[in-house]
Amino acid sequence: MIKVVLLGAGNVACQLAIAMENVNKVEIVQRYSRTASNKNFFDASIPCTTDLGALERADLYILAIKDEAIAEVAQTLPKLPGILVHTSGAIGMEALHMHDQHGVMYPVQSLSMHQKINLKEVPFAIESNSQENLHVVRSLSSEISDHVFELDSFKREKLHITAVFANNFSNFMFSCAEELCREFDIPFDILRPMILETGKKVQYMSPFEAQTGPARRGDLEVIQKHEEALKNTQKEIYQRLTQAIIKTYQKA
Amino acid sequence: MIKVVLLGAGNVACQLAIAMENVNKVEIVQRYSRTASNKNFFDASIPCTTDLGALERADLYILAIKDEAIAEVAQTLPKLPGILVHTSGAIGMEALHMHDQHGVMYPVQSLSMHQKINLKEVPFAIESNSQENLHVVRSLSSEISDHVFELDSFKREKLHITAVFANNFSNFMFSCAEELCREFDIPFDILRPMILETGKKVQYMSPFEAQTGPARRGDLEVIQKHEEALKNTQKEIYQRLTQAIIKTYQKA
Repeated sequence: MIKVVLLGAGNVACQLAIAMENVNKVEIVQRYSRTASNKNFFDASIPCTTDLGALERADLYILAIKDEAIAEVAQTLPKLPGILVHTSGAIGMEALHMHDQHGVMYPVQSLSMHQKINLKEVPFAIESNSQENLHVVRSLSSEISDHVFELDSFKREKLHITAVFANNFSNFMFSCAEELCREFDIPFDILRPMILETGKKVQYMSPFEAQTGPARRGDLEVIQKHEEALKNTQKEIYQRLTQAIIKTYQKA
Repeated sequence: MIKVVLLGAGNVACQLAIAMENVNKVEIVQRYSRTASNKNFFDASIPCTTDLGALERADLYILAIKDEAIAEVAQTLPKLPGILVHTSGAIGMEALHMHDQHGVMYPVQSLSMHQKINLKEVPFAIESNSQENLHVVRSLSSEISDHVFELDSFKREKLHITAVFANNFSNFMFSCAEELCREFDIPFDILRPMILETGKKVQYMSPFEAQTGPARRGDLEVIQKHEEALKNTQKEIYQRLTQAIIKTYQKA
């Protein structure tokens, strides 16, 4: 049995709690939350504390909190009898250096509270400061996910950058489309099947191959008409990305 | 029974052929292809001609060819006994004005040859030059799709612009992520579940609400580290989109 104390009450903490509750070999012995926020999302049978000085004994302490707060909370924590891990893609493992046993388990997914995700399908990038600790981090991660792989802090930061493009920036493109729909008085619903298909296509195809549209074809007539219909930020983004796509496929 | 002649042998023609073959009320009486290309994708029982002067009698002539060629082929076509429609999001209906009966049926989806898509789920934007013709275009479209709606050429062009953001540009973000993965020596597979989830999330959520990441949080420390790790086009795109996201959520 792997005993876990879960620190945090946000999206990642909540999704990890749900996943770990469904696993026989893992027990969440306690959770910590600075305030009593989001308590409805957690199983009421898990004891909760708001006092960092009153943490229970556990094999792993999972710090699933905001990036900005990781170093500070790690500093505030007492000496721990288990391994302290954070769950961030952007923060190096050394943020936890003041604890003898430390590591990282980063779920490569954009997690939100209101949407249940099957963490079995989510890749977990793990790291630890010793082979022994890594073994424990891997054991726990493998109970949660079927796709666990080791990645050092240097590479995890790089992975995080790719995730910004794959998730944050692509979602922002959907958001621009949504804003334009509002402006043009077109229901955004019309685009939803296309958006889903865009993501599905890339599950078995290279996005480089999947690229379509006027910029991919170098269709300057359509591009010009589009630019004339756009203004401000959307126009600039249209022009910048169109240039980049044209350049990419000219080289190819 | 609606009789159809299908002109074209590309992605859209192929997907329409597959969809129409499965519908009892529609018969593809003939297809036209400039060359014999892609013939393996079509049912061999559909008679095929390479002569625009030898088209069969039909209710509808579907011009599913490249945007650039639509006006030219329309001009070349003989007088037709049925309605001529094109399938483009970017081209106005007036490109077919030399034919008495004309219209548009635009599937709002990025269609490719190698991937079977259920057109029932794909919204179809339709238009025609008379109520009577519109009725026929609607009848056919409704056999293919469950989501048929009327949209004039002016608005269809606007819809096409939103689709460039929702599909072409988001896919290009995946493509940038893929290129960065190659550069950083990280398997692109790690990002695939996240990409799928990004599209799924927007099926029931506004992308404005779904936005996450360092730019959304205004996390300047992480943004700076990312910028230092990027170069050339990727760096410029990162900076431009990050600025736009920060600005969007400052206003909100």
